[in-house]
Amino acid sequence: MIPEKKDSARALVVGSVAYDDIETPFAEGRRLLGGSAIYAAVASGYFARTRVVGVVGNDFSDDDFARLDRCNVNSAGIIRDESGKTFSWKGRYHADFNGRDTLETNLNVFEKFEPFVPEDWRDTAFVLLANIQPSLQAAVLDQMNVRPFVVLDTMNLWIDIARPQLDALIPRTDLFILNDSEAAQMTGELNAVRAGENLMKKFPALPYLIVKKGEHGAVFFSRESDIFVLPAFPCTEVCDPTGAGDSFAGALLGCLACGENVSSETIRSAMCRATVMASFTIEDFSSTRIEKLSPAEFDSRFERLAAVTRV
Amino acid sequence: MIPEKKDSARALVVGSVAYDDIETPFAEGRRLLGGSAIYAAVASGYFARTRVVGVVGNDFSDDDFARLDRCNVNSAGIIRDESGKTFSWKGRYHADFNGRDTLETNLNVFEKFEPFVPEDWRDTAFVLLANIQPSLQAAVLDQMNVRPFVVLDTMNLWIDIARPQLDALIPRTDLFILNDSEAAQMTGELNAVRAGENLMKKFPALPYLIVKKGEHGAVFFSRESDIFVLPAFPCTEVCDPTGAGDSFAGALLGCLACGENVSSETIRSAMCRATVMASFTIEDFSSTRIEKLSPAEFDSRFERLAAVTRV
Repeated sequence: MIPEKKDSARALVVGSVAYDDIETPFAEGRRLLGGSAIYAAVASGYFARTRVVGVVGNDFSDDDFARLDRCNVNSAGIIRDESGKTFSWKGRYHADFNGRDTLETNLNVFEKFEPFVPEDWRDTAFVLLANIQPSLQAAVLDQMNVRPFVVLDTMNLWIDIARPQLDALIPRTDLFILNDSEAAQMTGELNAVRAGENLMKKFPALPYLIVKKGEHGAVFFSRESDIFVLPAFPCTEVCDPTGAGDSFAGALLGCLACGENVSSETIRSAMCRATVMASFTIEDFSSTRIEKLSPAEFDSRFERLAAVTRV
Repeated sequence: MIPEKKDSARALVVGSVAYDDIETPFAEGRRLLGGSAIYAAVASGYFARTRVVGVVGNDFSDDDFARLDRCNVNSAGIIRDESGKTFSWKGRYHADFNGRDTLETNLNVFEKFEPFVPEDWRDTAFVLLANIQPSLQAAVLDQMNVRPFVVLDTMNLWIDIARPQLDALIPRTDLFILNDSEAAQMTGELNAVRAGENLMKKFPALPYLIVKKGEHGAVFFSRESDIFVLPAFPCTEVCDPTGAGDSFAGALLGCLACGENVSSETIRSAMCRATVMASFTIEDFSSTRIEKLSPAEFDSRFERLAAVTRV
């Protein structure tokens, strides 16, 4: 797909685009637009014009491109591979929403995906390498003409099967985001704070790190200042937790891309907005809820987060 | 035991006194002074002179009475029952410290325990019913000459086997404290915020509620204001989590007893101090760490809690 006329976007997301079938204890959804790039780009687009790089198959709906358009997302970097279908995933959540089983994974066109960053996007200032294979994440960085601010997300699978590639990517990263269980997997430390400290020691070139704890919030590590402990927004209406982490990362990217300089202060502030975004994401299937999120709704919940956490 | 000359204490704790044998993944301790009353009274005594009611057996050490004395605790309400040994418990923690198995429980003199509140303690303004059978907790309230501010703690066992007695006690309580898993057990709600809201509905006479989430902090519910979400202090040196909840409750009691009026504001503030106290408790076996806690150490960690949670 030929990129549209160059926009002024400062945020770029690369990741997966998928159709998901999801069962939760209370509901199920079929052929839901999903994947790390979708959740992240829609969340980032709420704050800043966002470019997205990915691949879809011959079954991908034009309506879904239109959804991205309406969310301040430039989808010109999503290649349509006519040789097969869009990546699809089927999963079932446990009763407490904290665990899930993968019932089916069909890589389809994602199997041969080689991310291509359009020429005139190669100077984008902020890049989110949303959760895909570390080798593909690295391929995106290799194409950039500038050294962007790099946010890196990952998952347990890559820690298991692509650890050297992941380890090689972290020193090229400015802000690494992972779950507490993944931090434990990488360090052998079950204590999230120790695991984070351990990762900061292990990767001395990494300036910033966030260890996410799902419904329990997140811990931020930086070299400039002490840690920051943020509880999650106290959600009571959970429909589907899929994409919470991706939209958290995407919202962080979008917030950071709105400012000039990144510091531990701006990241702390962005984390608060990111946890609010994630809290909306899980109220419905797919990115449905955050696509229709109004500034009044966002601001109200953001203020409530500040109020309920104020010591 | 005849109570000593009346002190001016405004805080009273009733609970268990025990000798514990504890195994953790990293260490083990034998015949450790423990029980809900000990952890709670020592923590409360840090803030305010504290009276304690309980029972010990013929094996209880005078040195352990002396430890309480040194911690601003009046132990004249601890009866020595010469007919048997002190309650003892043996437990083993799992690798992540979040679960534990009880290996042995010997009720000993605790089996026939009937709490007796010394006559001149019956006007104590703040009472913590630390974790023991709800019927014994009720017996303490029945002996009071005033209607004190009542803090109630419990455990899964009583929810299982003494639910009617617990349910009858909650309307006589001002601040009910329980774990997220216990809140789920009482309500069928796995979401901690919903479980708390559910309990506040179920017990309309209960003004305040805290749902504890262990290493993930606590959520406070009140009828006057919105919820309050407090992360735990980010501990990295965990020796033994035993007593964290008891010392949290005790510190709350002691803080509240220092002031005249209780409000959701004073409870929020007390919770911050309570989580700091709990963070010290778990750094050593028994109440060892909090017995030797200096104001400088406490204040420094309290300030750090404020700093690392400041949005």
